[in-house]
Amino acid sequence: MARSSEPLVVGIDFGTLSGRAVVVRASDGKELGAATHAYPHAVMEATLSAGDGRRLGPDWALQNPDDYRAVLREAVPAALRDAGVDAADVVGIATDFTACTMVPVKADGTPLSELDEFANTPHAFVKLWKHHAAQPQADRITALAHERSEPWIVRYGGLISSEWEFAKGLQLFEEARDVYDAMDHWVEAADWIVWQLCGTYVRNACTAGYKGMYQDGQYPTADYLEALAPGFGGFVADKLDHTIGELGARAGGLTAEAAAWTGLREGIAVAVGNVDAHVTAPAAQATAPGQLVAIMGTSTCHVVNGADLRQVPGMCGVVDGGIIAGQWGYEAGQSGVGDILGWYVDNCVPGPYSDAAAAAGQSVHEYLTSLAEKQKVGEHGLVALDWHSGNRSVLVDHELSGVMIGQTLATKPEDQYRALVEATAFGTRTIVEAFTNAGVTITEFIAAGGLLRNPFLMQVYCDVLGMPLSVITSGQGPALGSAIHAAVAAGLYADVDAAGAAMGSRQKDAYTPNPSAVEAYNRLFALYTAVHDHFGRDHRDIMHSLRALRREAHNSSEETA
Amino acid sequence: MARSSEPLVVGIDFGTLSGRAVVVRASDGKELGAATHAYPHAVMEATLSAGDGRRLGPDWALQNPDDYRAVLREAVPAALRDAGVDAADVVGIATDFTACTMVPVKADGTPLSELDEFANTPHAFVKLWKHHAAQPQADRITALAHERSEPWIVRYGGLISSEWEFAKGLQLFEEARDVYDAMDHWVEAADWIVWQLCGTYVRNACTAGYKGMYQDGQYPTADYLEALAPGFGGFVADKLDHTIGELGARAGGLTAEAAAWTGLREGIAVAVGNVDAHVTAPAAQATAPGQLVAIMGTSTCHVVNGADLRQVPGMCGVVDGGIIAGQWGYEAGQSGVGDILGWYVDNCVPGPYSDAAAAAGQSVHEYLTSLAEKQKVGEHGLVALDWHSGNRSVLVDHELSGVMIGQTLATKPEDQYRALVEATAFGTRTIVEAFTNAGVTITEFIAAGGLLRNPFLMQVYCDVLGMPLSVITSGQGPALGSAIHAAVAAGLYADVDAAGAAMGSRQKDAYTPNPSAVEAYNRLFALYTAVHDHFGRDHRDIMHSLRALRREAHNSSEETA
Repeated sequence: MARSSEPLVVGIDFGTLSGRAVVVRASDGKELGAATHAYPHAVMEATLSAGDGRRLGPDWALQNPDDYRAVLREAVPAALRDAGVDAADVVGIATDFTACTMVPVKADGTPLSELDEFANTPHAFVKLWKHHAAQPQADRITALAHERSEPWIVRYGGLISSEWEFAKGLQLFEEARDVYDAMDHWVEAADWIVWQLCGTYVRNACTAGYKGMYQDGQYPTADYLEALAPGFGGFVADKLDHTIGELGARAGGLTAEAAAWTGLREGIAVAVGNVDAHVTAPAAQATAPGQLVAIMGTSTCHVVNGADLRQVPGMCGVVDGGIIAGQWGYEAGQSGVGDILGWYVDNCVPGPYSDAAAAAGQSVHEYLTSLAEKQKVGEHGLVALDWHSGNRSVLVDHELSGVMIGQTLATKPEDQYRALVEATAFGTRTIVEAFTNAGVTITEFIAAGGLLRNPFLMQVYCDVLGMPLSVITSGQGPALGSAIHAAVAAGLYADVDAAGAAMGSRQKDAYTPNPSAVEAYNRLFALYTAVHDHFGRDHRDIMHSLRALRREAHNSSEETA
Repeated sequence: MARSSEPLVVGIDFGTLSGRAVVVRASDGKELGAATHAYPHAVMEATLSAGDGRRLGPDWALQNPDDYRAVLREAVPAALRDAGVDAADVVGIATDFTACTMVPVKADGTPLSELDEFANTPHAFVKLWKHHAAQPQADRITALAHERSEPWIVRYGGLISSEWEFAKGLQLFEEARDVYDAMDHWVEAADWIVWQLCGTYVRNACTAGYKGMYQDGQYPTADYLEALAPGFGGFVADKLDHTIGELGARAGGLTAEAAAWTGLREGIAVAVGNVDAHVTAPAAQATAPGQLVAIMGTSTCHVVNGADLRQVPGMCGVVDGGIIAGQWGYEAGQSGVGDILGWYVDNCVPGPYSDAAAAAGQSVHEYLTSLAEKQKVGEHGLVALDWHSGNRSVLVDHELSGVMIGQTLATKPEDQYRALVEATAFGTRTIVEAFTNAGVTITEFIAAGGLLRNPFLMQVYCDVLGMPLSVITSGQGPALGSAIHAAVAAGLYADVDAAGAAMGSRQKDAYTPNPSAVEAYNRLFALYTAVHDHFGRDHRDIMHSLRALRREAHNSSEETA
């Protein structure tokens, strides 16, 4: 075994389907080894496979908490082996997680789903970020906040998501009072995993702010909550409120049990929890005000620091110290990006195209891209809306849906594929302009995430945005970002900025805009905006009615069945 | 050879890609034999394949006139053989044609493309109905008519199509003056083929009215035409005006030459020309006021007689005696129906679906239908616009294009297929309501054409329209309709109504509406109408801009190439 002469740190990125651990040299961020462990129960959407297999309702998405521990037991030792290092050199560990993903637990951190009495109770399991069944609760939370002019509502672009702590908590309160009553804490999975590592519950400032509506030192009031639902007034005091830790701070020391799981030394620093998108900023050396980091994958998350507090309509939120201590962290997002392209490839591309791709040794994505990239801007005659998975920013509406406009009998598969790529880029531009128009200047756009692998897509984004694109150097930005936080928690750096400067990196201006494409995209974007505002602002009733009809038809089918 | 003891007639339907001849017993319409001959040059859209192969401009669609004669030489004798009858028993022949399809000819009927000097001149060839390159001319014709309050404009729903005689004629005048000057007559192919059969040029009342803007005994004035384009004032007098014949009348007797081509007796009755859709009405026994006949195939044409003259916004036209002498014949149309479904199957259905269809011994259409028909109305959450080939009625705009709204990551191929089927049905309902709202009552909806083969599609139309559907009995409605006109021209019946009563037939109320589906479709149709009016009335600029961008991109590609 090669001995490292320098301190090492471990970062773990808990994604939607798996956790990925990396072992990193603290001095320069060099990634020495990595390993991934898939969650045995993945996402439970149709049935409670970790329980008795009962059916789940529409828009549910649960996970099994022990699947997260399995990542500690499997991926960390595997990453250490992959690195070929001595585990004794690891001085800190940090994690990032999907959010808002919520675990109902007892006072000692035991998930309710691990109690015999609740082993088959869906509400006792982890509600994954994409559990969307609390939309009615979210609607009431938003409406009442406006009605009462609650001060925090403007910090969330005017809309509270069904994905967040209060909507999911209210759903629990209203649909499973026994589970709610048995629950001592309503915990972000980001914090629960840290609790598992160090035995201490510390609430991270990022999710507390973005998902827990913690602003200026307080949560929504008991008065407001009681008005929302009688008996819910104690939600914050009884279930949510807890010590908050700054990002990069030490939450505690690794417990003997967690040391045994991971093979790391007992007592090493465990950092306060964090969120996948937000940790990526320092990994891309992009924490200065105006540097927007877009983590582009299945969906896209945008984070950017600002020196000042601004109100940005339709953003996800702005949180003091939400990305990095001492700055206002802004967040926005697109709920569907790579998954829209994946849906298209799986459902809309004819056999001869798949055959041609196989013959060329390409994936269908690569083959379609090779055809689409030959086109001039506008040549396909199409404009699409990227709402197949709803719209997070700037409309915050999961009942919106996708649109394709301009099809003719001459429209080819690569035309629609390109139009969908462009639609996601237009969605990003809409977000960038929302920030800019609200006074949050965007000085640099830094891309991270899986979609970096497609240079054509990146060039489209560059031309649509009309500005150069930087790209993160690391192929595993979130895990590296966590490792950076681990280094800070271990006391190797004064703060996350300093650690990011040493350990992160990016390629500046990796893509530069083509002026004629920029001009043509400006015209297409004007059409996108017209259609966006028609279906997303002036006439939401159209897509809402389609969704209502669909729900009614499904319900009547189930009655018949 | 079996001898028929009764008089026979021959009907020929000249379609877009082939001509179909049927031999019919005049007493009862029994179809004794049939044969089809494909046009050797089909439709020339990319290159002038009947000439030197030069490239054609966008939206051009030409044909070669001798391809029509080939149908006389090949299909008629083949149909006689198929029938096993004595050609001597045939007492009359009639034809129907696509329209508006125009042939520039010399005084003796020779097409200009058959002169050496014009053998490679695109403008000297037949301009097929779907030649759409005269849109700028059509726009000017419409605009000037409104500006001058020309009385005929209201007879065409307020809009003159680029497909018609004047738009195509003005394009010829402006783009190829030498061809225009060399031309003695600008002749409907419907009349040119009759001229070939009997040696006499008679202009049929149907196309003269619908496509030639002949109303109340006159064409647009020389004054108007001169204002449209200096020098064009003589267009009617010099090129267009000619004796008009009633539908079902005898145009002349079969010439010796045509008798030799067809194998029929010299001198038998040749009927005045007609149009495919219009001749179908008597074949379905549907010529009474309020009986709307929809000929549903690649595109759909709607014809209905009315006792009174009404102004119907967006219809194709109303013509005195346009369908049957003595009644006001109304016409409307959908420019894309079956071809939209064909485009979808060819371009948007994944390989596993094609494989499953093949494994089940079904066409992809049948397979998608088998999946789609299991759904409840609205279950797919989609609404589409059926404008992939533009919109004929009621918007009369070939620059409009298709739309699909409501896609999610759960949207399946059968969902979008069903949404497209429904969109074409909504398009039909829009037309029916335009007639109804203008006081042209629709008492019965009679379906004819190739789409009859899909009972699921027919039931969708029935439920969307909310009224019973009758269907034509004959599988070759237009050719039978022509045979009916041949019988009248031969003097076997007093008029077309009487011949239709004896020779045509339909199945009344073949489909009846399902009340719950009707109710659900009413709600979906309201959404269709909202989107229809947004993109088709209030904001045509969106699709027009997409088309303009597409054109510019194509043009700049060609410059680069």
